[in-house]
Amino acid sequence: MKNILHLQLLQVSFLSFLFSGLLFSQLDSSKLNHYNLVADQITKKALTEKAGYNLLGELCEIGPRLSGSENSLRAISWAGDKLEKFGIDKVMFQPVMVPHWERGEAETAEIINGKYLNILSLGGSIATPENGITANVIEVKNFSELEKRKNEVKGKIIFFSRPLDESLLNTFTGYGGAVDQRFYGAVEASKYGAVAVLVRSITTKHDNVPHTGVMGYVDSLPKIPAAAIGYLDSDYLHNALIDDPNLLIKLNLNCKTLPDAKSYNVIAEITGTEYPDEIIVVGAHFDSWDVGNGAHDDGAGCVQSMEVLHLFKELGLKPRRTIRCVLFINEENGSRGGKEYGKFVETKNENHLAAIESDRGGFTPLGFDIDTDSSTLIKIKSWLPVLEKSGINWIKKGGSGVDVQYIKNTKAKLGYVPDAQRYMDVHHSANDTFDSVHPRELELGSASIAIMAYLISEEGL
Amino acid sequence: MKNILHLQLLQVSFLSFLFSGLLFSQLDSSKLNHYNLVADQITKKALTEKAGYNLLGELCEIGPRLSGSENSLRAISWAGDKLEKFGIDKVMFQPVMVPHWERGEAETAEIINGKYLNILSLGGSIATPENGITANVIEVKNFSELEKRKNEVKGKIIFFSRPLDESLLNTFTGYGGAVDQRFYGAVEASKYGAVAVLVRSITTKHDNVPHTGVMGYVDSLPKIPAAAIGYLDSDYLHNALIDDPNLLIKLNLNCKTLPDAKSYNVIAEITGTEYPDEIIVVGAHFDSWDVGNGAHDDGAGCVQSMEVLHLFKELGLKPRRTIRCVLFINEENGSRGGKEYGKFVETKNENHLAAIESDRGGFTPLGFDIDTDSSTLIKIKSWLPVLEKSGINWIKKGGSGVDVQYIKNTKAKLGYVPDAQRYMDVHHSANDTFDSVHPRELELGSASIAIMAYLISEEGL
Repeated sequence: MKNILHLQLLQVSFLSFLFSGLLFSQLDSSKLNHYNLVADQITKKALTEKAGYNLLGELCEIGPRLSGSENSLRAISWAGDKLEKFGIDKVMFQPVMVPHWERGEAETAEIINGKYLNILSLGGSIATPENGITANVIEVKNFSELEKRKNEVKGKIIFFSRPLDESLLNTFTGYGGAVDQRFYGAVEASKYGAVAVLVRSITTKHDNVPHTGVMGYVDSLPKIPAAAIGYLDSDYLHNALIDDPNLLIKLNLNCKTLPDAKSYNVIAEITGTEYPDEIIVVGAHFDSWDVGNGAHDDGAGCVQSMEVLHLFKELGLKPRRTIRCVLFINEENGSRGGKEYGKFVETKNENHLAAIESDRGGFTPLGFDIDTDSSTLIKIKSWLPVLEKSGINWIKKGGSGVDVQYIKNTKAKLGYVPDAQRYMDVHHSANDTFDSVHPRELELGSASIAIMAYLISEEGL
Repeated sequence: MKNILHLQLLQVSFLSFLFSGLLFSQLDSSKLNHYNLVADQITKKALTEKAGYNLLGELCEIGPRLSGSENSLRAISWAGDKLEKFGIDKVMFQPVMVPHWERGEAETAEIINGKYLNILSLGGSIATPENGITANVIEVKNFSELEKRKNEVKGKIIFFSRPLDESLLNTFTGYGGAVDQRFYGAVEASKYGAVAVLVRSITTKHDNVPHTGVMGYVDSLPKIPAAAIGYLDSDYLHNALIDDPNLLIKLNLNCKTLPDAKSYNVIAEITGTEYPDEIIVVGAHFDSWDVGNGAHDDGAGCVQSMEVLHLFKELGLKPRRTIRCVLFINEENGSRGGKEYGKFVETKNENHLAAIESDRGGFTPLGFDIDTDSSTLIKIKSWLPVLEKSGINWIKKGGSGVDVQYIKNTKAKLGYVPDAQRYMDVHHSANDTFDSVHPRELELGSASIAIMAYLISEEGL
């Protein structure tokens, strides 16, 4: 008897183990059938109407949306108008003061007696003096190499040339492994007396379109200008330095930081019929860099979030809990929108059940990364068969997104994860335009997020 | 006691149920670690060297590869040379007689007193008489509508206008739901005395590039010419017919079917070190349609299959079982290559353990569909954690591919399944060119197939 009990205990514990990591629908079959039907409706509507794709076309027509720019305000106004026209219960603009950095008219990096390199100032960089900076160049791959050569650095331009590691499956991991050069490069180089910084563009595409992005300074060190070089011109500079280690580059940047500007998060919601105080956020960041049109980053996430509300309205789905679309301003260079929204939630003592962020491009769905406790994770995982209707393959524990992290006490923060093999080709560059977005890929993202929001609103967490 | 036993039985049967559908690695941890290491090596090599992508560039330079064409023979010779240069144990050309259909120089469909429509003869179509066919047009959506209007059909051109159903998640399902018009349209229309057939292109892209594909005749009915119309011109014709139901179209096709031509399957292998007689095929079809360059269909699958051998050689992986790359000729309009290879295997009484086909485009990996018995499926499913290294999300029971189906007595036939949201945009059209293939997406396919072949060669089935 003892042995049998022991065996049973083993089996029970094994079963618990199985349940903890795997999928078993916690939904009874009539609910499952109903949810499958709704998920099919959502997917079909998204794929045939392409409302999000059409919105993205309009948004990209307005142009880029860097925080503080006039264009960003025009786009914010457009988004509010569109949401109003959906017949949403509430649309509001939440004021936020945002950094206001502007790229100058002419940015050049000329190899003296040689060619001009394709460059873009990094976001937040100071300008060079009016006559530019002319200096020798030291190429390094990383900060430890810089540290070893610190005695040579004074008065030089530091060229950080380490490329994104393309051998990695996950392009975001590759990006994460190279972005220190862009963000901290000016600080690290300034420590040893460098006068400027050039950084190889962080990209998976071997073209010559430079990729910008935010960079930082510290008050305790002199601020020095910083720019990204196109991938091919980074190779060119690397080879030119082998031929002539004493070559000079004349760098001219005339970007500037203006006083903080007034901007807005755009917030719109469909009030829940049974639990209006339980809020499910679907969100993305509305600002973009000032080159290209921020189509994938993060126009895609914005129109997907807007489309979720549109799909609910069009299909006559009345959510039991409140579905709120939040378009956060200023993710790229300050996260002021995310922080402001987080404060607002805290002040109002709102109950956020879940927040779903889409900020990884408008590509074919892979899955959802979820930051939550293990029993909530098991519950959400059990819905996978329904989410497969829009192409979701998996649901895993993982990080969510930059903006939703500021919403404290949210039971689950979810990151929508599309395939991102093509993302770093266009990210933060002039190539992030509408034509790089595929309608079906984008729309399946909208459908996936809408189905997830629907299931949370029906089932709770 | 009885109750306890009953409970135990219930639990055991529940466990069996779980095991049958889900994943539990059957590999011990040292094997798993080793396989993960190899899978990482394969993925990194594929993503950094991009050997398959570079091969595809060369292959597309040669041009399209319709069965029987001189160009297809040039490409076959190129493939043999490339495989020889990999230092493969055996490379052979297997002779196959293939259909030899040729598109004529001028193909036109003119609305009399109106515009010319963008058309492409369907593969296998006969020509029109030299002066063309001028006739009224009847538009129908499907064969039952045709049957209802059979009394009007005599002497008319039938326009099959049903589009691919874009509301479906799976673009192949959409394709499958529309392709009857293209394949059987001429036969069905000929039954009632029609003189020609026009078919809306089967595509997910709303442009005006026509998509061809194979069509059939039966000997008992008059053969009538058939062509595909671009999506936009299909809409145009639909509207023009509303304005004027009596409009006339003058159709001119001058395609022809020549006597069967000699062609070849290309076969190359790395002989297994321990079980050389147990063969694992990695294969794809080498022929393409005569427009575009067959980059996705199926140049992608061919260079992936070639790259599998290249990766084994480059990484010094000596498979325990034989890995054989087969480039099948004539999948598009006859499957003669697949059938010939099947006969060869049967005659030689070869032992094919598995055959993996890649013929769904060169896009980001999703999973593998496997046609096998349930215990073999469980075994292969248990390898998923290793296959995740190259981005595989799932392994399911499912169909494999057109060519490998002719290999009888294969323990497992596998279809590599990439994302296919963009596939039908370019499939069988002039847009199926090298620039529509993304290097990372393609290479992850090569890596996925290589890892699967490696695991089968190590573990057996």
